[in-house]
Amino acid sequence: MNDARITEQLAFLAEIDALKSVVRQSPLADGSRRENSAEHSWHLAMFALVLADYEAVDTGHVIKLLLVHDIVEIDAGDAPIHGDHNSQDIEAREKAAAERLFGLLPEDQAAKLSSLWHEFEAAKTPEARFAKALDRLQPLLLNTLTGGGTWTENHISESQVHERYGPTIERGSATLWRHAQALVQRHFSESNDEL
Amino acid sequence: MNDARITEQLAFLAEIDALKSVVRQSPLADGSRRENSAEHSWHLAMFALVLADYEAVDTGHVIKLLLVHDIVEIDAGDAPIHGDHNSQDIEAREKAAAERLFGLLPEDQAAKLSSLWHEFEAAKTPEARFAKALDRLQPLLLNTLTGGGTWTENHISESQVHERYGPTIERGSATLWRHAQALVQRHFSESNDEL
Repeated sequence: MNDARITEQLAFLAEIDALKSVVRQSPLADGSRRENSAEHSWHLAMFALVLADYEAVDTGHVIKLLLVHDIVEIDAGDAPIHGDHNSQDIEAREKAAAERLFGLLPEDQAAKLSSLWHEFEAAKTPEARFAKALDRLQPLLLNTLTGGGTWTENHISESQVHERYGPTIERGSATLWRHAQALVQRHFSESNDEL
Repeated sequence: MNDARITEQLAFLAEIDALKSVVRQSPLADGSRRENSAEHSWHLAMFALVLADYEAVDTGHVIKLLLVHDIVEIDAGDAPIHGDHNSQDIEAREKAAAERLFGLLPEDQAAKLSSLWHEFEAAKTPEARFAKALDRLQPLLLNTLTGGGTWTENHISESQVHERYGPTIERGSATLWRHAQALVQRHFSESNDEL
């Protein structure tokens, strides 16, 4: 056994425990609190396991992309979809985070996990596009389950939902976007009925 | 698109959001609170991604086993390692939970996820044994990071740690157990120095 190697690996696994303390804007389905990025990543991996058959993608690879995609938030924080951001600033912070965090691993694994993260960010492979679609679909589902969630909080209109979620979901899976649109339409038509 | 199929899939994905509210005994690495079973499942999947090379296992399959392994706790609750349990009672409750929860999915996927859960429980394949080893190694690591965690809380001795963690970890990976033993020994020797 290579002690130095396993010591580095366990140091990385201890460090990424902090993803459980990065709080996102999305509510849990029961509305009891906001979700954190670690449980969000688990939920997304389950979305991949259940929904990947709609597209010609390698399910196992989509899952790996999703497990890794938010780890940079440990240093860089979460950038909510309905917030104002300086995207160049976020990009620089996330790049530094990836270098520090994946850099805790043995060199070969640092390169491997860093490459998964870059693949997700670049959204050029079918797997990365599908993973990004799920990363939009999951909070959309949580919002429809909680009477609007972050849409209600941020006074987001139906057309803004289409603008902010549609392109990313549709690029990953036109099938999922058709179904998501139906959920969005139902939510806003029920909300309007209540006014 | 098959609307009935995707409706069932999203109902399942909404239902399993409840795993984020199943609280385990293990502390987070920073000691701020106890972890929940959803974020625990993500953390375990990352353990698999980083540590699977120590054994001849299919990493992607280990990850799928770990993503699914705790879902039954939504109905059956978590059974802490240092508690008293009626194992027949737990087994019956978990079996009923698997039927209800995986039963929300389209039949083919219900069978697939149920089979992953049964494979994990049976611990007969190398992948299931390795997944079970990680499910013991992760709380062991969290305990050593938090001055003893559930061991200190439950007055667990070094030899009890060996009895309760050793067989499962060693069966999945003798390499990981050798390293875990060193962590356990260091923890108890430092605790004794403090007495």
